[in-house]
Amino acid sequence: MSGDAAVRTHADNPGIAILKQRFGDRASTAESVREHHGRGEGWFPTMPPDLVIYAHTTEEVAEIVTVCAEYRIPVIPFGTGTSLEGHVSALHGGVTVDLSQMDAVLSVNTEDLDCRVQAGVTRKQLNEHIRDTGLFFPIDPGANASLGGMASTRASGTNAVRYGTMRENVLGLTVVTADGRIVKTGGRARKSAAGYDLTRLFVGSEGTLGIITEVQLRLYGIPESISSAVCQFPDLESAVNTVILTIQSGIPVARIELLDEVQMAACIAYSKLEGFEPAVTMFFEFHGTEASVDEQAAQVQAISTDFGGSAFTWAKLAEDRTVLWEARHNAFYAALAAAPGKKGLATDACVPISKLADCILETKQDVTDTGVFAPIVGHVGDGNFHLCLMFDPDDPEDLARAKGIVERLNHRAIAFGGTCTGEHGIGYGKMSYLTAEHGEAVSLMRDIKKAFDPNNIMNPGKIVSI
Amino acid sequence: MSGDAAVRTHADNPGIAILKQRFGDRASTAESVREHHGRGEGWFPTMPPDLVIYAHTTEEVAEIVTVCAEYRIPVIPFGTGTSLEGHVSALHGGVTVDLSQMDAVLSVNTEDLDCRVQAGVTRKQLNEHIRDTGLFFPIDPGANASLGGMASTRASGTNAVRYGTMRENVLGLTVVTADGRIVKTGGRARKSAAGYDLTRLFVGSEGTLGIITEVQLRLYGIPESISSAVCQFPDLESAVNTVILTIQSGIPVARIELLDEVQMAACIAYSKLEGFEPAVTMFFEFHGTEASVDEQAAQVQAISTDFGGSAFTWAKLAEDRTVLWEARHNAFYAALAAAPGKKGLATDACVPISKLADCILETKQDVTDTGVFAPIVGHVGDGNFHLCLMFDPDDPEDLARAKGIVERLNHRAIAFGGTCTGEHGIGYGKMSYLTAEHGEAVSLMRDIKKAFDPNNIMNPGKIVSI
Repeated sequence: MSGDAAVRTHADNPGIAILKQRFGDRASTAESVREHHGRGEGWFPTMPPDLVIYAHTTEEVAEIVTVCAEYRIPVIPFGTGTSLEGHVSALHGGVTVDLSQMDAVLSVNTEDLDCRVQAGVTRKQLNEHIRDTGLFFPIDPGANASLGGMASTRASGTNAVRYGTMRENVLGLTVVTADGRIVKTGGRARKSAAGYDLTRLFVGSEGTLGIITEVQLRLYGIPESISSAVCQFPDLESAVNTVILTIQSGIPVARIELLDEVQMAACIAYSKLEGFEPAVTMFFEFHGTEASVDEQAAQVQAISTDFGGSAFTWAKLAEDRTVLWEARHNAFYAALAAAPGKKGLATDACVPISKLADCILETKQDVTDTGVFAPIVGHVGDGNFHLCLMFDPDDPEDLARAKGIVERLNHRAIAFGGTCTGEHGIGYGKMSYLTAEHGEAVSLMRDIKKAFDPNNIMNPGKIVSI
Repeated sequence: MSGDAAVRTHADNPGIAILKQRFGDRASTAESVREHHGRGEGWFPTMPPDLVIYAHTTEEVAEIVTVCAEYRIPVIPFGTGTSLEGHVSALHGGVTVDLSQMDAVLSVNTEDLDCRVQAGVTRKQLNEHIRDTGLFFPIDPGANASLGGMASTRASGTNAVRYGTMRENVLGLTVVTADGRIVKTGGRARKSAAGYDLTRLFVGSEGTLGIITEVQLRLYGIPESISSAVCQFPDLESAVNTVILTIQSGIPVARIELLDEVQMAACIAYSKLEGFEPAVTMFFEFHGTEASVDEQAAQVQAISTDFGGSAFTWAKLAEDRTVLWEARHNAFYAALAAAPGKKGLATDACVPISKLADCILETKQDVTDTGVFAPIVGHVGDGNFHLCLMFDPDDPEDLARAKGIVERLNHRAIAFGGTCTGEHGIGYGKMSYLTAEHGEAVSLMRDIKKAFDPNNIMNPGKIVSI
């Protein structure tokens, strides 16, 4: 796909030569390297950049952007390449700045429950690094993504129902702006009323306003007690109603994940889960003191029993919990394994909790009517769920059917007062839905983009066009 | 002060005549009305607008701004006038849009724990309105402020340690932009990765980017159990160390408020609190199930005992809690009553929790050395505290002494990695500290201001100058 007509090449731009010379071995034009950086984990075609540079410091990123600004070359930040809406595709060619070697944990403040990391540190690396402090970083989108990438896409995942998303957990940033300046936003205070909230503006801006090079994060004490449980349900509606009542009751569950019967069957086969039926299933996790975990679990069990849920299967030991959550995290690969020869189009939507049953049931009906193999999983405590739509990569009609379901799902979520993406982001895959969802507000987003990046070199073609 | 030379008058601007004609009785040029709108509760001189209009709808606000945009007239939004950093002062004259009559609760969604209100609804009015639903809105800055004003200043207050600030609790907004468009931001989903976070950008923008006319808010279930307690300490250090350890232990206290011995003496006298010494004091509140409230209280009591705190004096009954929290909310008036003939300059700062003891103790020393009567109170769980500096309004040197303490406090907080304002905002009182705190990032704030309000008519002269 490197010859894709849509990709504008900048290979002859003198800025590329300057950067190659400056960064030597850390600047690559090798096709395999460029191809690897031309796609995330989404279904989008590979669109490689002209050059990939492995940056080591914020100052180097600033140097790269300064050259790109002078020579009008697109700049695309790249962490681990696990995003799903085409965020890292080089739609207009240019330079990809790979931040994965910026992997230093810069400081950990156990007294203040915060830390500062370079953008390339992954969430697992951070948690490994701070393991002995009694603290952890909860945000877990499944993939072992980089924290800079997670900030850029406003990631969340399984723990967000209790701990919030990257929006709530980033205290401050270092950002390289489109003209190559280094700017620090936010601070270490837990709250501030000092000026415009630039931190929240860059969180979720997907590299289109600047490149995040450092992230200040909140940390949390590892709970005294953690318990996971699995509960199976006669149908989707009873499971979703259990979620709704749990959330409405204000029970502070740490994780509340739904797998429909299709997904559960795939997970049983792929992850060799024993003792479960291929039925609609929920995975719970409770965090707190011994007493409060017991109390939360008893409350949720009472609710699920009322809706016909099975007895809880408990995983109190860390290794048993790991089996469960790995099975959950591997849901996408389980779905792929259940549909040999197909590719997966993963999408997400998020609605107010009262609309969750309607939105999931209508979507399930649409999937059934359309005849696509599409397991449903979800961080349902937030009203957020995913479809993994399997399509034959050699059959355009199959892809069109899958995209039709996505389109109807997004408009359905928006009509229910929800959003076209709870956590995957807009990239270039969901730009039309952004307009459907936000209307006139998109013009303000465009104003910000123009103000911060008048030459449109920062990850151009994503979120908004200018 | 209406003849203040610094106030530019727009009285003859044809736009003023157009608006007077259009809004009739709801447009006032009466001196008393203009004077009332020319100041908040801060120490700043009154700077009245040329015209005050009482708006009833978002469309009317848009109409006003459209005229002001055409005739280049400053527009200043006004809620209840309780802000502290000169936010509502008409520095350049113009039109004040009083939103207090936009006081409709538009919807309450008990199932989704959210609601939508017009900007003029106050926090007490909202809580009164939803009393029978079992839900409440926790953010409590003390004053019965309007929710639009609270969003505009990113307010927080006593409950923020548990429930977050307006940053975390505003789901979406309706905003009138500087060119008179009506824009909706955010939505009702609990999380979204769809585009730039305009909601968080307008929250805390103090009317400088647009006028907030509607607010979508998170609500919470009223806890099954609520308990308040008071604990007295031998000195400031032991009290602050109790706070620090409580927060570091992750105990989810709902309120944790500090009053130094000066403030406590004033409160005992003003609010007729019985059974307490004029000593360093903390007020706690615990929310949760019966069991978890008991557990939290026992944990905190153990910590405070270790630091020499007294036995807890409990207020489990609602009416006893009300006495306590009214005394806390009236701290400012108690301080004024303790210093007859003086005015109060209320300021705030916020630091990482590990720096709280150093910051408060150094500040206390400065107050003592400077010889100003200045009680300390604080939402110390967030690292946030206030000084109420009493000065003689007829003695410029007294004011200068107070301002000197404020200046040193803000630079001290910034040096400790904190912020010059945890919750009061920048207004025009703290613009110099904004630059000290955020440096180059202020230029990005200025870029946003220019992009959203190129003619600088939206509350000009606040947060950033362009």
